[in-house]
Amino acid sequence: MTFPLSAAIAGNVPGVVASSVYANGRRVADIPVEEAGVWAQKPGHVVWIGLFEPSLELLEKLRAQFDLHPLAIEDALKSHQHPKVEQYGEALFIVARTAQLVDQTVAFGETHIFLGKGYVVSVRHGASTSYAAVRERCEACPANLTRGEDYILYAILDFIVDNYRPVIESILSEIDELEDGVLHRMLTRAEFERLYKLRRDLLRLRRAVGPLVDVCHRLEHIDILFIDDEMKPLFRDVLDHVKRAEEDIDSLREVLAFAFEASLMSGQSQQTEITRRLAAWAAILAVPTAIAGIYGMNFEHMPELKWTYGYYVVIGGIAAICGYMYFRFRRNGWL
Amino acid sequence: MTFPLSAAIAGNVPGVVASSVYANGRRVADIPVEEAGVWAQKPGHVVWIGLFEPSLELLEKLRAQFDLHPLAIEDALKSHQHPKVEQYGEALFIVARTAQLVDQTVAFGETHIFLGKGYVVSVRHGASTSYAAVRERCEACPANLTRGEDYILYAILDFIVDNYRPVIESILSEIDELEDGVLHRMLTRAEFERLYKLRRDLLRLRRAVGPLVDVCHRLEHIDILFIDDEMKPLFRDVLDHVKRAEEDIDSLREVLAFAFEASLMSGQSQQTEITRRLAAWAAILAVPTAIAGIYGMNFEHMPELKWTYGYYVVIGGIAAICGYMYFRFRRNGWL
Amino acid sequence: MTFPLSAAIAGNVPGVVASSVYANGRRVADIPVEEAGVWAQKPGHVVWIGLFEPSLELLEKLRAQFDLHPLAIEDALKSHQHPKVEQYGEALFIVARTAQLVDQTVAFGETHIFLGKGYVVSVRHGASTSYAAVRERCEACPANLTRGEDYILYAILDFIVDNYRPVIESILSEIDELEDGVLHRMLTRAEFERLYKLRRDLLRLRRAVGPLVDVCHRLEHIDILFIDDEMKPLFRDVLDHVKRAEEDIDSLREVLAFAFEASLMSGQSQQTEITRRLAAWAAILAVPTAIAGIYGMNFEHMPELKWTYGYYVVIGGIAAICGYMYFRFRRNGWL
Amino acid sequence: MTFPLSAAIAGNVPGVVASSVYANGRRVADIPVEEAGVWAQKPGHVVWIGLFEPSLELLEKLRAQFDLHPLAIEDALKSHQHPKVEQYGEALFIVARTAQLVDQTVAFGETHIFLGKGYVVSVRHGASTSYAAVRERCEACPANLTRGEDYILYAILDFIVDNYRPVIESILSEIDELEDGVLHRMLTRAEFERLYKLRRDLLRLRRAVGPLVDVCHRLEHIDILFIDDEMKPLFRDVLDHVKRAEEDIDSLREVLAFAFEASLMSGQSQQTEITRRLAAWAAILAVPTAIAGIYGMNFEHMPELKWTYGYYVVIGGIAAICGYMYFRFRRNGWL
Amino acid sequence: MTFPLSAAIAGNVPGVVASSVYANGRRVADIPVEEAGVWAQKPGHVVWIGLFEPSLELLEKLRAQFDLHPLAIEDALKSHQHPKVEQYGEALFIVARTAQLVDQTVAFGETHIFLGKGYVVSVRHGASTSYAAVRERCEACPANLTRGEDYILYAILDFIVDNYRPVIESILSEIDELEDGVLHRMLTRAEFERLYKLRRDLLRLRRAVGPLVDVCHRLEHIDILFIDDEMKPLFRDVLDHVKRAEEDIDSLREVLAFAFEASLMSGQSQQTEITRRLAAWAAILAVPTAIAGIYGMNFEHMPELKWTYGYYVVIGGIAAICGYMYFRFRRNGWL
Ligand SMILES: [Mg+2]
Ligand SMILES: [Mg+2]
Ligand SMILES: [Mg+2]
Ligand SMILES: [Mg+2]
Ligand SMILES: [Mg+2]
Ligand SMILES: [Mg+2]
Ligand SMILES: [Mg+2]
Ligand SMILES: [Mg+2]
Ligand SMILES: [Mg+2]
Ligand SMILES: [Mg+2]
Ligand SMILES: [Mg+2]
Ligand SMILES: [Mg+2]
Ligand SMILES: [Mg+2]
Ligand SMILES: [Mg+2]
Ligand SMILES: [Mg+2]
Ligand SMILES: [Mg+2]
Ligand SMILES: [Mg+2]
Ligand SMILES: [Mg+2]
Ligand SMILES: [Mg+2]
Ligand SMILES: [Mg+2]
Ligand SMILES: [Mg+2]
Ligand SMILES: [Mg+2]
Ligand SMILES: [Mg+2]
Ligand SMILES: [Mg+2]
Ligand SMILES: [Mg+2]
Ligand SMILES: [Mg+2]
Ligand SMILES: [Mg+2]
Ligand SMILES: [Mg+2]
Ligand SMILES: [Mg+2]
Ligand SMILES: [Mg+2]
Ligand SMILES: [Mg+2]
Repeated sequence: MTFPLSAAIAGNVPGVVASSVYANGRRVADIPVEEAGVWAQKPGHVVWIGLFEPSLELLEKLRAQFDLHPLAIEDALKSHQHPKVEQYGEALFIVARTAQLVDQTVAFGETHIFLGKGYVVSVRHGASTSYAAVRERCEACPANLTRGEDYILYAILDFIVDNYRPVIESILSEIDELEDGVLHRMLTRAEFERLYKLRRDLLRLRRAVGPLVDVCHRLEHIDILFIDDEMKPLFRDVLDHVKRAEEDIDSLREVLAFAFEASLMSGQSQQTEITRRLAAWAAILAVPTAIAGIYGMNFEHMPELKWTYGYYVVIGGIAAICGYMYFRFRRNGWL
Repeated sequence: MTFPLSAAIAGNVPGVVASSVYANGRRVADIPVEEAGVWAQKPGHVVWIGLFEPSLELLEKLRAQFDLHPLAIEDALKSHQHPKVEQYGEALFIVARTAQLVDQTVAFGETHIFLGKGYVVSVRHGASTSYAAVRERCEACPANLTRGEDYILYAILDFIVDNYRPVIESILSEIDELEDGVLHRMLTRAEFERLYKLRRDLLRLRRAVGPLVDVCHRLEHIDILFIDDEMKPLFRDVLDHVKRAEEDIDSLREVLAFAFEASLMSGQSQQTEITRRLAAWAAILAVPTAIAGIYGMNFEHMPELKWTYGYYVVIGGIAAICGYMYFRFRRNGWL
Repeated sequence: MTFPLSAAIAGNVPGVVASSVYANGRRVADIPVEEAGVWAQKPGHVVWIGLFEPSLELLEKLRAQFDLHPLAIEDALKSHQHPKVEQYGEALFIVARTAQLVDQTVAFGETHIFLGKGYVVSVRHGASTSYAAVRERCEACPANLTRGEDYILYAILDFIVDNYRPVIESILSEIDELEDGVLHRMLTRAEFERLYKLRRDLLRLRRAVGPLVDVCHRLEHIDILFIDDEMKPLFRDVLDHVKRAEEDIDSLREVLAFAFEASLMSGQSQQTEITRRLAAWAAILAVPTAIAGIYGMNFEHMPELKWTYGYYVVIGGIAAICGYMYFRFRRNGWL
Repeated sequence: MTFPLSAAIAGNVPGVVASSVYANGRRVADIPVEEAGVWAQKPGHVVWIGLFEPSLELLEKLRAQFDLHPLAIEDALKSHQHPKVEQYGEALFIVARTAQLVDQTVAFGETHIFLGKGYVVSVRHGASTSYAAVRERCEACPANLTRGEDYILYAILDFIVDNYRPVIESILSEIDELEDGVLHRMLTRAEFERLYKLRRDLLRLRRAVGPLVDVCHRLEHIDILFIDDEMKPLFRDVLDHVKRAEEDIDSLREVLAFAFEASLMSGQSQQTEITRRLAAWAAILAVPTAIAGIYGMNFEHMPELKWTYGYYVVIGGIAAICGYMYFRFRRNGWL
Repeated sequence: MTFPLSAAIAGNVPGVVASSVYANGRRVADIPVEEAGVWAQKPGHVVWIGLFEPSLELLEKLRAQFDLHPLAIEDALKSHQHPKVEQYGEALFIVARTAQLVDQTVAFGETHIFLGKGYVVSVRHGASTSYAAVRERCEACPANLTRGEDYILYAILDFIVDNYRPVIESILSEIDELEDGVLHRMLTRAEFERLYKLRRDLLRLRRAVGPLVDVCHRLEHIDILFIDDEMKPLFRDVLDHVKRAEEDIDSLREVLAFAFEASLMSGQSQQTEITRRLAAWAAILAVPTAIAGIYGMNFEHMPELKWTYGYYVVIGGIAAICGYMYFRFRRNGWL
C-alpha cells in the first residue's frame, strides 16, 4: 500500500465492539450479531453494530443477516480502500479515511460503513478511535437518534471530519515554527527532515480528505429510501467542513512549498556570503605572505635589508595595507 | 485555523452594533432584538441588524425571532467558515471574508449574513470595519433602500469587495519596490522575509476572494422570493469586481513567483562572479609567493643571487607578470 | 491597479473624437452628442460616436441619449475593467484591452463599447490608437457598413485583435535574441532584466487576450436583435485570431520559462567550470611554493644545498612536475 | 514508440495459446480457430480464444470467423495502442496495458480484447503473463462462467488491474529506501540513477493506468446486448481498483518529486558546509604561514631574531592564535 | 509568427500541383481549375485539387468555382492558422499542421482543406510533402475512393497524422542518448543546446497535435450531408492515433523536464565533489608550506636547525602527516 495504515491504537481488540437495537431514539437491547437481521426488519427499529478489524467469518455472518454484496464484504475485509460511496440496490457502502493525533504523530485509519433499511454497521481499520463517543452523544439526544439510520451515518461522518481539525492545527503549528527557522537561519538536518515528513503527512491527509468531498456531495443529493430530505442540510454541513479541511490542507501544502523554496534561497545566500568572506580574508592574508616572501629572498644586493628601520617599515607597511583592506571590505559589506 | 483571523480593530465591542427597521427607504425605528421578528413580518418593513462577535445567547435570541437554522447559527458563532451561500428553506446564509489595511498590515475578518423575507442580519468577526458606512450610504438614498433586503445584501457585498482594492494596491506597490531590489542587487534578509510574507498574504487573500466568485454567481442566478430580478445586474457587477480582484491577485502571485526565481538566479550570478574574482586574485597573488619562495631557497650555488641587479630584475619580473595577468583578466571580464 | 494602463499616446485629447450618423453605408451627418438619441431612432440610421477618456458629464449626456445602464457608465468612467460582454436589456456593454508598440515598448490601453439598436459608442482609455483608421476603412466599403451596428462592432474588435500581432512578434524577436545569449554565455544583468520584463509583459498580454476568447465566443452565439446571423462567421473569425494570439502568448511564456531554467543551468555550469579551473591552478601553483619552502629552511645539514647543480635540479624538478600536472589537467578537461 | 513494450517473457510462443468452447460454465470442447464462428453462434455457447503476438494470417482467420472490423484487426496486429474501448456495431474492441515484475524489473505489455455475442478473444503483446490462471479460476467456478462473455471480460480486466499492485508496492519499497538516503546523506550516483529510472517507470505506469479509468467507466455504463446489468457492480469494482492504483501512482510521483527537491537542498547544504569548513581551515593555516614568513625575512636589524627564546615565543604565539581560532570556529559551528 | 513555418522542401513549386475528377473510384479527367465547379456538380463525380502556396489569383478562381467563404480564402492565403474545422453552410474548412523529418531536422508545415459536395481542395504551406502518395494510394483502391469526398479527407488526415510518428521516434531516440549523458556525466554545451532545442520542437509539435484532437472529434460527430455514417470509425481511428501522438509527446515533454532537473542535480553534485577535493588537497599542501616556513625563520636560537638529522626528521614528519591525511581523506571519500 502506498501509505500503510498506522498500527491499531492500544486497547482496540478485533471483533464486535458494540451491537445494539434502537427504537424511538432509545437503546432497546444489546444483541448478538446473529439476531441482527431479524431486529433490523422490525418497523421503527434500527440495529447499530460497531466492528474493529473483523475476521472473514464475522463479516460472513453480517452478510447473511443483511444480504450485503460480496464485493463490499471483500473491501471491508481488506481495508486500504479509496474513500467512496457505493450503492448496491437499496443499500449503501461508504469508505472514509480517518486521521488523528496519537502521541504527537498523525495516525491514519479507515472506516467502512454498511447502511441499509434498519441497520448501520461501522468497520474500523488501523489507528482509529472507537465510535463509543458518537454512540454516547446519540443516546444522550433521543430526539436526534429517532431520525434513524441516516442520522447515525451523519453522526459518524461528522465525527470523522471533526477529527481532521486537531491534526491540521498541529501541522500548522509545526510549520509556523519551521518557517521562523527558514527565514532567520539555515535549517538543521532534523528540521529539514521534519519539513519533508510534514509534506508527506499533508499529501496523505489530502488523499484522505479530497475524495470525501465527493462522498458528502453524493450523500447530500442521493435519492434512497432511508435518507430523509431533512437530513440534507446535515450532510451539506459535513460537506462544508470537509471543504474547509481540504482548503486548509491545500493552503498548508502551498505554504510548505514556499518554505522549501525559501530554504533553497536562504542556503544559497549563506553560501554566497561565506564565499565572499573567504575571498576577502584570503586577499588580506595574501599580503604579508607575499611581502615577507620577497624580503626572505637571499639576494646579496637588497639595500632595504640593511636599513636600520627596514624591518619596522615593512611590518608597518604590511599592517597599513591589511588594515586599509580590512576597513574597505568592511564598508563594502564583504566582511 | 490555518490562517487565524486578525485581532479585532480597536473600538469594536462585541454585541449588537445597530438594529433598525426601515420602510419606504427610511428608518422607522431603532428596535431591541427581541422585537425584530414582529417588525420583520409587517409588509413593506425590513429589519437590519448588525452584530459584532455575538455571544451564543444573542444568536439564540435571533434564531428565535427569525426561525434561523441551528447549523447556520453554529457557523455564525464559531467563525472561520468557508465563503459560501447556503439556502435554508426561504432563507439565505452567506459567508464572506474581509480584508483591509490596518497600520499598513493586511488584517483579515469574516462576515456572516442571514437574509430572509423582511430581515438582514450581518455578523462580523475579527478585524473588519463596521458597516455603519454602508448603512449611512443606504439611508442617504431612500430610492435604493426601498428595494429592500436584497439591496442591503448587495450594498454589504459591494462594500466588502471594494475594500479588497486598497489591500491589493498596497501589496502591488510593495512588490514593485522588491522587484527593483531583485533586479539590481541581492535581496537583504529583511526584503527576503517581506517577499515571503507577501506570498502568504496573497495566498490568504486568494482563499478569501476565490470562493466569493461562486457566491456572487449563485446570487446572480438564485431563484428566491425576496431577490428581485432587477437586482441581477447589481450582483453581476459585484461578481465582475470580485473577478477583477481575483485576476489581480493571480497576477501578483505569478509576479512574486517570477521574483523568487529571479532572486535565485541573481544570487547564483553573484556567486559565480565572486568565485571568478577570487580565482583571478588567487592566481595573481600566487606569482610573487612562488617566485620569492624560489629565491628564498638556501642553495649555495644560485648565480642570480649574486648579480648586482638580480633583486630589481626579479621584483620587476614579478610586477610585469602580475600586471600582465591583471590587464588580461580585466579585459576578459574576470576582474 | 495591478498593471496600470500606459500613458495616453501624444495627440490624444479627452472628449469626443468623432460623432457621425450613417445610413445605407454612407455618412449622413456629423452631429453633436446631444442629438444622438434622436438620430439613433430613425430607421436605417446608425450613430457612431468615438470618445477618449470622457468626463462624467459627457458620459451622463450619452446615458441620457441612449438610456445606458448606470453600472456600465460607472465602468466606462473608471476604466481598469476586466474584458467582458454584458447585456443590459437590449443593449450590450463590451470591454476589451488593447496593446500596441509605442517606441519599441508595449503600451496597454482599454476600450469600452456601448452597442444598441441604432448606435455604437467606443470609449478609449490609456495608450490606444484612435479608431479613425477603422472608420475610414468602413466608410471606404459602404456594402459592409450598410450591415449596421454589429458590423461596426466587428470592425473595432478585429482592429484590436490585429494589433496584438506586431506586439507578439516584437516580443518573439527579443526572446530569440535572448535565447542565443542563454545558450552560448551567461546573461548580462541588462539581458536578465529584459528577460524579467518580457515575462511581465507577456503575463499582462495574456490577461488582456485570455478573457477576450469568452467575449468573442459569446458574441458569436448571442441572441440579440441587432446582431444578424450572417455576422456569426465574422465574430468566429475574430475568435479564431484571438485564440491564435492566446496560443502564441502561451508558447512564448513557456519558451521564456525554458530560458529561465536554462539560464540557471548555464550559470551553474559556468560556476562548476571556474571552480574546477581554480582547483587545477591552485594545485599547480602549490608545487613551487611547497618545494621552495623546503629548500628555504635553515637547517645546517641539508646536503642538497651544497650540490653544485642542486638549484638547477630543483628548478627543473618543479618545472617538470608543474608541466606534467598542466598537461594531465589539460587532457582531463580540467584546464 | 515512446516507451517500447518489454521483450516477451521466456516461454511465450506466438500463435494460439488456447481455444475452447464453454456452455453452462463448463468446457465443452477445444476447437481450431477455423470452427470458432460456428460454435459462437450456438445459443448458450461461448468461444474463448487466447492469442500471443499473432501473425496477420491468424488475425485474418479470426476476422472471417467473427466479422471483426479491419481497423481493430490493424490495431491488434501493430500493438502500441492507447488503452481504449471501441464499439463496432454490436462488438467491442478493448485495449489495456499490463505491467508486472520480471526479475525485479517492471515489464510492460499490452492486451487487446475482441468481445462479441458468443466469443472473447484476447491478444497479448510484449511481457505479459498468460491468462491461463484466469481461465483456470473461471473453470473452477462454473456458476460465474455461466454468466458468459461479459464475465470473462471482467475476469481478464480484474487480473490485469490486480497485477498493477505488486509493481506499485515494489516501487514504493524502493522509494522508501531512497528517501532515507536523501534525508541522511547525499545520494550516490547509482541511487540518483535509480531515482531517475523510477520516475520514468512511474510515468509509464501512469500512462498505462490513467486511460483505463475511462475504459472501466464506459464498461460500467455501456448499453450493449451481451453485457448484463448484474455485471455493473463487477465493472465498478474494477474501476474502483484502477482508481486506487492511479491514486497510489500519483502519490508516489509526488513523493518522488519531493525527494528530487530534497536531494537538491541536501546537496546545497553539504556544499555550504564544505565551503564553510574550507574557509575556517584556510584561515587557521594562514596564520603560521604569514608569521613564519615574516621571521624568514633577511633584514639585518630584527631584534626578535636575536632573543634567546624568540623562536619559542613565536611558535607559542602561533599555537595560541591557531588554538584560539580553532575553538572559536568550533563553538560557532564552523568546524 | 511564434514559430515560423519551415522553408519549403526542394522541388515544391507554388501553384496547382494536381487537379483531377474521379467517378466510381477512378480518375476520369485532369482538368483546369476553371472547369472545376462544373465537374463538381455532376452527380457521382468528385474533383480533387492539390495546391502549394497558391497566389491570391488562384484562390480567387477557386472561390468562384466552389463559392468558398472569403474568410476561409483569407486564411488559406496567409497560412499560420490554428488547427481547426469550420463549417460555412454546407462546406467545411479544415486546418492541420504537418511535421516531418527533413535532413534529421523537424520541419513544420500547414495544410488547409476545403471540402464540399463534389470537391476537395488541399492547400499546402511550408515544408510539407506532396499528397501525391495519398492520391496514388487512393487510386490504387477504387473501392475506397468510390466513397467520395469524405474518404479523401480521411486519407489526407491519416497521412498527416502518420507522419508525426517518425518525428516523435526521432526525438525519442535523441532524448534516450541525452539521458545517458545526464546520468553519467555533465552535459557538454552542445548537448545542453540540443536538449533546449528538443524542448522547443516538442512544444511546437504539441501545439500542432493538440488542437487536432478536437478537429478529429468534431469530424467523427459532425452532421453534414457529404460525410457518411460509415466514415465515423475511420475518423475515430485518426482521432485515436492523434491521441496517441499527443500522449507520446506529453510523455517526452515530461521526460525532458526530468532530464533538465536531473542535469541541475548532476551539476550540483559535481560541484560539491570538486569543492570537497579542492578542500582536501589545499589542507594537505598547507602542511609542508607551514612547517617549511617555520624552519625558514631566521632566529639565532633554533636548536633543531643544528641537529645532524633535523632536516631528515622534518622532511619525514611532513611526509608522514601528508600521507596520513591522504589516506584518511581517501577512506572518507574526500579524495
Ligand atoms: Mg482536488
Ligand atoms: Mg477543493
Ligand atoms: Mg483544492
Ligand atoms: Mg481552493
Ligand atoms: Mg475547497
Ligand atoms: Mg492537489
Ligand atoms: Mg482562478
Ligand atoms: Mg478567475
Ligand atoms: Mg484568473
Ligand atoms: Mg478572472
Ligand atoms: Mg490559482
Ligand atoms: Mg512552482
Ligand atoms: Mg488558457
Ligand atoms: Mg491563466
Ligand atoms: Mg488555444
Ligand atoms: Mg487557451
Ligand atoms: Mg492555449
Ligand atoms: Mg506557466
Ligand atoms: Mg519550477
Ligand atoms: Mg487522472
Ligand atoms: Mg489523481
Ligand atoms: Mg485519480
Ligand atoms: Mg483518484
Ligand atoms: Mg497527472
Ligand atoms: Mg515541481
Ligand atoms: Mg498544454
Ligand atoms: Mg489532451
Ligand atoms: Mg494530454
Ligand atoms: Mg495525457
Ligand atoms: Mg491522451
Ligand atoms: Mg498537457
